[in-house]
Amino acid sequence: MSEYPILKTIRSPEDLKKLDPSLYGTLCDEIRCKLIETVSCTGGHLSSNLGTVELTVALHLAFCSPIDQIVWDVGHQSYTHKLLTGRFDQFDTIRCQNGLSGFPRKSESIHDAFLAGHSSTSISAAYGIAKAKTFTGKDGVTVAVIGDGALTGGMAYEALNNAGRCKDPLVIILNDNSMSISKNVGAMARYLAVIRSKPGYFRFKDHLENLLSHTPIIGEPIKNWLIASKVFFKKLLYPTTFFEDFGFMYMGPVDGHDITSMRRVFERAREIKKPVFIHVLTKKGKGYEYAEKNPGAYHGVSTFNIETGNPETVEGDSFSAEFGNYLTRLAKTDARICAITAAMKYGTGLQVFAAEFRSRLFDVGIAEQHAATFAAGLASGGMFPVFAVYSTFLQRSYDQLIHDIAIEKNKVLLAVDRAGIVGSDGETHQGVFDAAFLSQIPGFTVYSPSNYAELRLCMHKALYELSGPVAVRYPRGKENPLIASEISQNVDYQLTDSNRNVLLVTYGRLFAEILTAKQLLEEQHNIKISILKLVQITPILPGCLDMMMQYSAVYFVEEGIKAGGIAEQIAALLLEKGYKEKFRIRAIDNTFIAQGKDTECIRQCGFDGRSLADWIADGEKP
Amino acid sequence: MSEYPILKTIRSPEDLKKLDPSLYGTLCDEIRCKLIETVSCTGGHLSSNLGTVELTVALHLAFCSPIDQIVWDVGHQSYTHKLLTGRFDQFDTIRCQNGLSGFPRKSESIHDAFLAGHSSTSISAAYGIAKAKTFTGKDGVTVAVIGDGALTGGMAYEALNNAGRCKDPLVIILNDNSMSISKNVGAMARYLAVIRSKPGYFRFKDHLENLLSHTPIIGEPIKNWLIASKVFFKKLLYPTTFFEDFGFMYMGPVDGHDITSMRRVFERAREIKKPVFIHVLTKKGKGYEYAEKNPGAYHGVSTFNIETGNPETVEGDSFSAEFGNYLTRLAKTDARICAITAAMKYGTGLQVFAAEFRSRLFDVGIAEQHAATFAAGLASGGMFPVFAVYSTFLQRSYDQLIHDIAIEKNKVLLAVDRAGIVGSDGETHQGVFDAAFLSQIPGFTVYSPSNYAELRLCMHKALYELSGPVAVRYPRGKENPLIASEISQNVDYQLTDSNRNVLLVTYGRLFAEILTAKQLLEEQHNIKISILKLVQITPILPGCLDMMMQYSAVYFVEEGIKAGGIAEQIAALLLEKGYKEKFRIRAIDNTFIAQGKDTECIRQCGFDGRSLADWIADGEKP
Repeated sequence: MSEYPILKTIRSPEDLKKLDPSLYGTLCDEIRCKLIETVSCTGGHLSSNLGTVELTVALHLAFCSPIDQIVWDVGHQSYTHKLLTGRFDQFDTIRCQNGLSGFPRKSESIHDAFLAGHSSTSISAAYGIAKAKTFTGKDGVTVAVIGDGALTGGMAYEALNNAGRCKDPLVIILNDNSMSISKNVGAMARYLAVIRSKPGYFRFKDHLENLLSHTPIIGEPIKNWLIASKVFFKKLLYPTTFFEDFGFMYMGPVDGHDITSMRRVFERAREIKKPVFIHVLTKKGKGYEYAEKNPGAYHGVSTFNIETGNPETVEGDSFSAEFGNYLTRLAKTDARICAITAAMKYGTGLQVFAAEFRSRLFDVGIAEQHAATFAAGLASGGMFPVFAVYSTFLQRSYDQLIHDIAIEKNKVLLAVDRAGIVGSDGETHQGVFDAAFLSQIPGFTVYSPSNYAELRLCMHKALYELSGPVAVRYPRGKENPLIASEISQNVDYQLTDSNRNVLLVTYGRLFAEILTAKQLLEEQHNIKISILKLVQITPILPGCLDMMMQYSAVYFVEEGIKAGGIAEQIAALLLEKGYKEKFRIRAIDNTFIAQGKDTECIRQCGFDGRSLADWIADGEKP
Repeated sequence: MSEYPILKTIRSPEDLKKLDPSLYGTLCDEIRCKLIETVSCTGGHLSSNLGTVELTVALHLAFCSPIDQIVWDVGHQSYTHKLLTGRFDQFDTIRCQNGLSGFPRKSESIHDAFLAGHSSTSISAAYGIAKAKTFTGKDGVTVAVIGDGALTGGMAYEALNNAGRCKDPLVIILNDNSMSISKNVGAMARYLAVIRSKPGYFRFKDHLENLLSHTPIIGEPIKNWLIASKVFFKKLLYPTTFFEDFGFMYMGPVDGHDITSMRRVFERAREIKKPVFIHVLTKKGKGYEYAEKNPGAYHGVSTFNIETGNPETVEGDSFSAEFGNYLTRLAKTDARICAITAAMKYGTGLQVFAAEFRSRLFDVGIAEQHAATFAAGLASGGMFPVFAVYSTFLQRSYDQLIHDIAIEKNKVLLAVDRAGIVGSDGETHQGVFDAAFLSQIPGFTVYSPSNYAELRLCMHKALYELSGPVAVRYPRGKENPLIASEISQNVDYQLTDSNRNVLLVTYGRLFAEILTAKQLLEEQHNIKISILKLVQITPILPGCLDMMMQYSAVYFVEEGIKAGGIAEQIAALLLEKGYKEKFRIRAIDNTFIAQGKDTECIRQCGFDGRSLADWIADGEKP
């Protein structure tokens, strides 16, 4: 199997179309092996890709990419698509530095129609592309493939509301595996369950239409009359789905592991040339026992052992777990504490809290906007809501943070996970904007602890000493052992003073790199530096500024965007106060950080101890 | 009538409950007169308030505020609510400096449950409040009043998806006037139209249930059997609405101008103690001839003449109109240009474009997330999409700007209207964050023209000379005659040099205030200043920095948030380059700007020429 005899002959969708249908099964087996083999080494999204193997094969059989364009929602289920569109040879490099992206990228292949890393964007993008095709007279159908989890995001609804009645060739394929990232949430999930229980729906309608169309003379008029007649009768013979109410032609449910059935339906949809909604039922994790049993744990995995199927995401030594455990501890004696997650119960470490305080845990689906305002509502009613969310996804709540949380000073605690560089997920997932945008919102307090002990201190202070909204942001992964014991007495800042010459300032986990840099500078360059580690990064404390004023050179390292970030804000305040000495900033400057291991990305940005030492040595050259 | 004999006796909902029902009609007439009289002087939202007079009266008759809490979506239709909850005497001050807010504010009254100025937030907030009541054991029902326009926002859908199946006393009232801010958009609007055509729905169901419940012995079993039986039969006898699919008990449609009917339905809903969705039909602008005929034009008005009904919003001399007209001109010779608005066709000046290029104008509803990604899709397909949006509402697109527009460098033009201070709408609507957050996004170019000519230059350059995403931001209202002729030759910056001492830097319309300050400084303080007006504010041009380096004092005035804004970014760059002279910033510092006239707000921030002159004179004192 490790030879992949069939898969490696498929260099393009054209090759796939030439393949004998009797070999589809073997092809799918090979694809699954390749997926498991690769993801066990590189990490990545396994369950969702295992579940969409046949779907992707059927897609490329029925549609003609790149003339037809396929937009993958979230994009992490596009691995099979990559294997079938000429990227088999590079597939081992997926999510690695300079390798294939874990998401569709236009720059990577003409078969990748649109970038996606966040959820619920595909219908909007596909509708835009379809409309552009119509305007510019280009051929081809635009296809969006969206999971049921992504349908919990309001943006998908906005798009359905707009796209359903257009006249453009647009096909929406709902990949319904009856569970989103963790557990599917809310009414839409239940609604889909009802439709799923009616496998005959599509066939019934088809059958009746066929019957009437083939009944001589009176068949057609009866059909037309039925369609045109009152809503009541229409509902009786033509029960409608939510999606039909929105203007789409609905087809389904179709078995998402039956290539022949899907291909037939897709080909039919392709001919219709107006909005079609196809409901495909798949099984997440299909074909890999461990993932099938526990798809949530395999949603986005680092690396794992193929035999035991043990993914790393469940490990307890992480900022996420630390946050979840401490919050659970606090919640035991404080009934006001409740936790909110946007479909990331596992990722954010809230599974323990969920088990102990089921009624106080709200998994709202991929609905960060609702999450933030719902939290504001809870706070306004006297609860202590804690919204645990990845930095990159918090971007979806930006307006709600200002409008619903900050203006009325609602006491919401944002637990901002994956703040800073996240590594292999690349550009779409880097948490490099939160420090800048949170610090701009009036009334927000923002903490950036560098180890677990500080994380707990910050959470405690946020809940029991402060009155307005607070964000506590912390990185992906574990605390660095080098700084695990370096606890600040308070959540303000910590100074390690050696002299009044060179001061190196940072916040968060880069403190560890700075300690390395300090040692290198002393040993190799005979430069002594002082270190200021900030914990409270917003509002900027006057004491910090006074301290910095005393140094003859300040170097600020920030694992975040430079423009408008904390370093620039502090530089401006210093300049206003009359600081006239050297000030240098190292941060992410007007660029997106590509994928790679955390350490590689950190090195690439020049944030590692070695690079920092070189930078300072260079700056301090006489 | 100007005495308002009945209205002025209502100091609280309790007073209203004591009123003889025969006087409800007169009371509503008085309220409408008061609304028209006041809004004609203060400006504000007229149509939506005229349409909800009876609805609000019925709400306060059926519910017991503040034990029951009413959350108004968008909030601009809460004027009658303010009149009935003890704010009649202050009502003339609405939207004025230090007066009543045009939106619900908790700080203003115990009857204002939650702030709202942006759309589609009410269900999330109300659900949070309802949940908090349950947790804390507090009595009362939570009510959200949401318009059909707000249902086009995905956030409302996220909230429905979450709230529908809760067990808390939550009542959602859909105020369906069959048109949102401009024209209602998309499938949901059509869907509501279908329901509206079935006024018997609620009664039919009621009737059948009653009948069966009162049929001895077999009635109840038949009813239960019907409910439990197959979906097919259920649909026949119990047709469900979208809202029922989402778990709500649906009641309606109810005539939104019939107080008795509404009161009965509301009282019943109040007893149910679980999620109820009530569909109320109202007529926007009801009771004022001009507004009824053209509710779009009266949505948010400045001031107008009661007799002629001529609202100021349609005036042609504004940045919005200038943008719309110029875009229309460009679109005549460029078929790639298309325009997108999120339910603000009139507000953003796109009505001319809409009339000329109907197929290239997309009014997506109150769906800024979709709008941005849809634009990215259009751009990716070779079109030139222009998304015209108010600065404050663009906050809703923050994630999409990064994720869907910037990473792949999709060429989308954001026409950011109402950038800067907007005046009477207050905290929720100030456009003071866009310069900061747009400038942080890698690859974005941001222009801030100060007059119409520059606006056109910037638009032209964005569309025909640049390749990535561009934002052109401009203020509410007209260009200042003082600077109408001050055209930059290019869209970079413009220096008025007098010496190398004091440099005053700004961008956008504050340029006019700076000219005033310059004159005052010369005349009254004998201080000569140079002026640098930036047009391109992102990326910051190296030439600008070099220029500033030569001055011995730089004063930067920014009509936006200070933290992370353009001034701070420039200060940081200067400090990094070794600038050692005086640098001062005047911007909005960690606060929200309350309502008032534009000029009042500008003065309050110290942005007016007089204040600026004093500030500089003070800074330059020997």
